Amino acid sequence: MVPHLITALTGPINELEQRVLESMPATERWFRLEWMEHTPPFYCSVDLRNAGFKLAPVDTNLFPGGFNNLSEDMLPLAVQAAMAAIEKICPEAKNLLLIPEKHTRNTFYLQNVQRLMRIFTQAGLNVRLGTLDTAVTAPTTLPLPDGTELTVEPLLRTRGRLGLKDFDPCTILLNNDLSGGVPPVLAGLHEQYLLPPPHAAWTVRRKSMHFRSYEEVAKKFAKLLGMDPWLINPMFGQCGQVDFNDSGGLDCVQSNVDALLTKIRRKYKEYGINEKPFVVVKADNGTYGMGIMTVRDAKDLTELNRRTRNKMSVTKDGQSLTEVIIQEGVLTNERVNDAVAEPVVYMVDRYVVGGFYRVHAERGVDENLNSPGAGFVPLAFDESNHLPRPGERPGASAPNRFYMYGVIGRLAMLAAAYELEATDPNAETYE
Amino acid sequence: MVPHLITALTGPINELEQRVLESMPATERWFRLEWMEHTPPFYCSVDLRNAGFKLAPVDTNLFPGGFNNLSEDMLPLAVQAAMAAIEKICPEAKNLLLIPEKHTRNTFYLQNVQRLMRIFTQAGLNVRLGTLDTAVTAPTTLPLPDGTELTVEPLLRTRGRLGLKDFDPCTILLNNDLSGGVPPVLAGLHEQYLLPPPHAAWTVRRKSMHFRSYEEVAKKFAKLLGMDPWLINPMFGQCGQVDFNDSGGLDCVQSNVDALLTKIRRKYKEYGINEKPFVVVKADNGTYGMGIMTVRDAKDLTELNRRTRNKMSVTKDGQSLTEVIIQEGVLTNERVNDAVAEPVVYMVDRYVVGGFYRVHAERGVDENLNSPGAGFVPLAFDESNHLPRPGERPGASAPNRFYMYGVIGRLAMLAAAYELEATDPNAETYE
Repeated sequence: MVPHLITALTGPINELEQRVLESMPATERWFRLEWMEHTPPFYCSVDLRNAGFKLAPVDTNLFPGGFNNLSEDMLPLAVQAAMAAIEKICPEAKNLLLIPEKHTRNTFYLQNVQRLMRIFTQAGLNVRLGTLDTAVTAPTTLPLPDGTELTVEPLLRTRGRLGLKDFDPCTILLNNDLSGGVPPVLAGLHEQYLLPPPHAAWTVRRKSMHFRSYEEVAKKFAKLLGMDPWLINPMFGQCGQVDFNDSGGLDCVQSNVDALLTKIRRKYKEYGINEKPFVVVKADNGTYGMGIMTVRDAKDLTELNRRTRNKMSVTKDGQSLTEVIIQEGVLTNERVNDAVAEPVVYMVDRYVVGGFYRVHAERGVDENLNSPGAGFVPLAFDESNHLPRPGERPGASAPNRFYMYGVIGRLAMLAAAYELEATDPNAETYE
Repeated sequence: MVPHLITALTGPINELEQRVLESMPATERWFRLEWMEHTPPFYCSVDLRNAGFKLAPVDTNLFPGGFNNLSEDMLPLAVQAAMAAIEKICPEAKNLLLIPEKHTRNTFYLQNVQRLMRIFTQAGLNVRLGTLDTAVTAPTTLPLPDGTELTVEPLLRTRGRLGLKDFDPCTILLNNDLSGGVPPVLAGLHEQYLLPPPHAAWTVRRKSMHFRSYEEVAKKFAKLLGMDPWLINPMFGQCGQVDFNDSGGLDCVQSNVDALLTKIRRKYKEYGINEKPFVVVKADNGTYGMGIMTVRDAKDLTELNRRTRNKMSVTKDGQSLTEVIIQEGVLTNERVNDAVAEPVVYMVDRYVVGGFYRVHAERGVDENLNSPGAGFVPLAFDESNHLPRPGERPGASAPNRFYMYGVIGRLAMLAAAYELEATDPNAETYE
């Protein structure tokens, strides 16, 4: 199920979209069966790129911020999904401890935290905020732009349990992606649920691992719909020993870029697509839109200037970049008010709970939009259902063009579920 | 969780409402624990009466029509709830057989059926309509006001399974309340899920049984909130051998009315309420707003005119009325455009998925509004959240005045769950 939201798409429905729309009942059933076998991540946001002929995820975030960029109307969907998630994990839960990122001066981020608190409060939980910032030794209030405030409190660890003063939670929900590693205070919790699990952090996760899982999922799903998986799957390669500051350090990247561009060119020819292929080189464990560059020709890598080399060699929290993924670039042909736009889909448990467009007026259709200067346009519910057109099937009055984003978003979430199973250090093996 | 909808309430928040709003996390947790022990009905609508000092359910419908009276925006909530329901019952389901009422010329009702089909289609099911009308021997199309149409098909029974031609459903959903009894074609289905179960039909159900369960639920909940259960519970009596066409046939009703009016008077005095008490006499197994009358004085029953006697002696499908419930009347102090209004809350599985006001310009605050001439005003999402007021707690920006309706609606649904457990002919007993 995907809510009917207004997208920026106004042109005719193309073949890919048509096929996804037509296959809705089969698709929903397929997801239902997959979720019987695989546990969805607690929550998840997925960045998509829609080239028209191709629609693919380019990033899957298991510690999503930006809930405040969803339309207010979406709140009940998120609450309902949160209830379903909580019931499975800890049905008797009274208290939820939410651990946000440390950057407490970013009011946009704080509004995301506020929104998450509202969702879980309305789902029937007492929610309080604990911080990993050891400099916080007493409850600290953080002002919000609307005049309200949030209170973050120091964590209290006692044997197997983590809490706050006079607050013993059943579930600890991380909205902090642990890019700097799993701190001792979170390690070895045996009696509480820590979600997402620490191996969902970028210290363990690799984009290449995720997209390998995604490829598997995309192949299964494409088989169901009888279509070429490439239409929803970005091809990729990876390099594990990269040094952006050494002349020979990019040899592997260069040969991968070359090979991938050749493969894309072949696919474009097969489908009669008149676009210039490009690839995106990204930190294999990167986040925050850091450590990302667009490459249109392998030769470009030999001519990187100092600024680009410096930019690419470090990611969030000062981690140095040595592993990269080289991913097929998917251009976005969507625009909101003339600015290049890409849809971002939000999910809680197995449910799509909303989305927004990330827009960037100063970026091209083949560039990363997750960078300073980006704006956010919430997707609203589509009211056009009120005016069904005569002669159409019930419910078919206006096609839900957000639906295909909800499908691809969930395929990426399912890939994350596969990925987390494969990397779970506590998994039981039956070999 | 209850969506934030705009109610007709504009006055200050009274003590009862305040207590319900403040107790939200405890309330949600309490429901969560109750649903672990008790299976919610598949779907349900509850008519409420809000006197301000008192808020109570007056009817709980387990075969709800009127889904078309919910705002379009609510659709995703209903779909999400339907997915959760289906997953529990029949996760591998492909097909859903929906059995609507037979009155196929009522286009309002057909729009309800259309809306239900949309909900289940979007939840990933192939939905088709089967009719209990044996006069229908071939697929028959029924036109809808918007120019579209519905197709109802004859049922096909083979041993333990029920279906349509080339259609074998996992679940059969009744939107027909079986007032005329359980037809043979629905009896003895062993391999499929028939929902709601046949003992939810008015041939088996009794309002008195429901309100006995509700009283139990209301007492538990009132204890949690530390308040008098009377504030949410309508008192009642019952009579089993009534004859509206015989002079002595109403003796039991008369003495019950008298006793109940005395009890209400005492309660009004306790709370300093300056209103005239009244009771409502209803068919114990009635539906469709038939067989209902307001009584302000026991003496009135001796002076019933022929028209009222005739009206009261027969209910839906020509069933004669011999059992009645005498229920404390709860006046409604809500108005929409000057018309007297009562809120109706809709639920699918354990989730509140929307609501509307039933309004009737020609009825008084102490009369049944479910009668010819009633109108329906969908409740829309409240957008006032967009304007949080400084100094208030996060999420508290504008109180959700629909919340208490969602709570009382769910209490009635929980009572229905208790009731269905108690009347289940296949229940295992551990005595």
